[in-house]
Amino acid sequence: MPHSQTNKITISIDTMGGDQGVNITIPGAARTLEKHPNIHFLLFGDESYIRPVLSRYPNLKSNSEVIHTPHSISNTEKPSVALRKGRESSMRLAINAVSDGRADCIVSAGNTGALMAMAKMVLKCLPDIRRPAIASVLPTHDGEIVMLDLGANLSCDSEVLVQFALLGAVYAKVVGGKETPTIGLLNIGSEDIKGHEELKSAAAILERVSFSGKYHGFIEGDDIPMGTTDVVVTDGFTGNIALKMAEGVANLSALYTKEAFKSSIFAMMGALLAKRAFSRMKAKIDPRFYNGGMFLGLDGVCVKSHGGTDAIGFANALEVAYNLIENEFNEKVAQELKELMNQESFFASDIEGV
Amino acid sequence: MPHSQTNKITISIDTMGGDQGVNITIPGAARTLEKHPNIHFLLFGDESYIRPVLSRYPNLKSNSEVIHTPHSISNTEKPSVALRKGRESSMRLAINAVSDGRADCIVSAGNTGALMAMAKMVLKCLPDIRRPAIASVLPTHDGEIVMLDLGANLSCDSEVLVQFALLGAVYAKVVGGKETPTIGLLNIGSEDIKGHEELKSAAAILERVSFSGKYHGFIEGDDIPMGTTDVVVTDGFTGNIALKMAEGVANLSALYTKEAFKSSIFAMMGALLAKRAFSRMKAKIDPRFYNGGMFLGLDGVCVKSHGGTDAIGFANALEVAYNLIENEFNEKVAQELKELMNQESFFASDIEGV
Repeated sequence: MPHSQTNKITISIDTMGGDQGVNITIPGAARTLEKHPNIHFLLFGDESYIRPVLSRYPNLKSNSEVIHTPHSISNTEKPSVALRKGRESSMRLAINAVSDGRADCIVSAGNTGALMAMAKMVLKCLPDIRRPAIASVLPTHDGEIVMLDLGANLSCDSEVLVQFALLGAVYAKVVGGKETPTIGLLNIGSEDIKGHEELKSAAAILERVSFSGKYHGFIEGDDIPMGTTDVVVTDGFTGNIALKMAEGVANLSALYTKEAFKSSIFAMMGALLAKRAFSRMKAKIDPRFYNGGMFLGLDGVCVKSHGGTDAIGFANALEVAYNLIENEFNEKVAQELKELMNQESFFASDIEGV
Repeated sequence: MPHSQTNKITISIDTMGGDQGVNITIPGAARTLEKHPNIHFLLFGDESYIRPVLSRYPNLKSNSEVIHTPHSISNTEKPSVALRKGRESSMRLAINAVSDGRADCIVSAGNTGALMAMAKMVLKCLPDIRRPAIASVLPTHDGEIVMLDLGANLSCDSEVLVQFALLGAVYAKVVGGKETPTIGLLNIGSEDIKGHEELKSAAAILERVSFSGKYHGFIEGDDIPMGTTDVVVTDGFTGNIALKMAEGVANLSALYTKEAFKSSIFAMMGALLAKRAFSRMKAKIDPRFYNGGMFLGLDGVCVKSHGGTDAIGFANALEVAYNLIENEFNEKVAQELKELMNQESFFASDIEGV
């Protein structure tokens, strides 16, 4: 029974997704249940894999239901093929549970493209939302921010960008706890013609309308790690590349630090002395605590975990889904969107590219 | 007299550009002259600023010529305004020196947009090159790579992307010393439709034609810091945002390391012991040694220094320009391009968006 009718939250899990499947997803669920005893889990997947792991977690066992299917979606499966041939897959059945009202949300560590394609088809978008976006919380110098789109849409017209700004603002407010979140539109600053037409047009709309967020203006790439704004809005192509490049640079920095500490006997002694300080720093930016790509804009909560994470990381993705339900994110988005659409001139003729 | 007729290389400098103008550009030139005594400098700018600094560098003084102008382009000047009103500016006169044949190349730490606009107008593109790109050498886990475009073109059709691939490949070969440089087209991998039409079409051309580089395929954001390919090709919007985000993350990592070393008495002792190891690491990725954005594709060498760099960084930008001239980059591009254009089906009908 969904959240709205009880104080239970039911999370549907595609247990087969990710590099290690049930060995990560089941221990992750057990961990989340310790923190939130009001969760009930629907565990979709091959029960011959699920049951042996589940038997190690008696509390989870008594707060979950195993729904067996021998089929799963591989990481290399094309989304279009997954849509056609994956109707009995653990991923698809787990999504169906949300559209059927048996679960409040679905979490998977599987194939991103397939998950997005299936979730879009089964759950559909919220009323008046044109496209879903992949959003993620990121650590910055100035606290946590939310960035979207991270790969669901190659290009976005101005209205879609405005809707993403609204999704991000509502998230930063209702889940992130920020009173009036600031919104930045990602752009470049070095040229006379500053940015695409759709960016200029989105900026014009955001300056005019009123909603949960406050439009800050255009920001540049280095504003993201500085935390200049609470919400960063961009198209999925740029967002995906920028995020992956940032992750790569962060990993490289960590590697260089490790190499420096190993490069001499003095540095090694220094490493021993500084060990606790560096552990604290690492914990602060541990990617596992930022795991969970939210598919915002869908009429149902769907969260994608990194495929290569561990149980702690998967538990964080579950937590992300839990928070979206607990804070009634989708209900608040629907309400804000309705108000926004009623504001004069939202669909004015200066919206380009629609 | 230009390089082709003597063994001297003449570098034209806009001495007024950058946050600190002559206090950086003149000492930077002096530093480069020590390394390359065959350079002659043309120093454009306000002589009341230039002369006092220049008098401290007698060797530079005797190997340079001061060309006085009281006008300069501010960092906030719009490129279109700079084009119209900046005809007597140090930046414009320094560029003119290249088109007049008085200098081999021009280096400025000034307004990027204005420099690109003026350089494009005055120098024009190499024959058959449709658009110039901003390119930069970047440090990666697997050695140095070259990435372009970093902000000259908001969007690029497939032919322009192929030309950028060629520019990058020739650079990696003749300046970077790589026998057969590998080329990656920056894309995202999570969706069924992997990338824009122009990327698919550019990939099809790069798979077919033969030139200095070897086409590797699509790469993702994290491939850049890993150094997966020697050349990274992308449009200027994506490239600019990805690079700035990467710079921001690198700065943030450095800041976190600093904070960790200061966070306890043990960590501070550790810092003392590891100091030399970290200095070596920092030297390896010192942004000053990667300073110098090359405007590739122009019929004349133009290099943009970061405005906020110091004399060491500005000297590196001069070195970048020197290497392009010394290795006859433009001559080799022109030759390769001619061969490429002669290859059957380069302008086949499957080139989209041209």
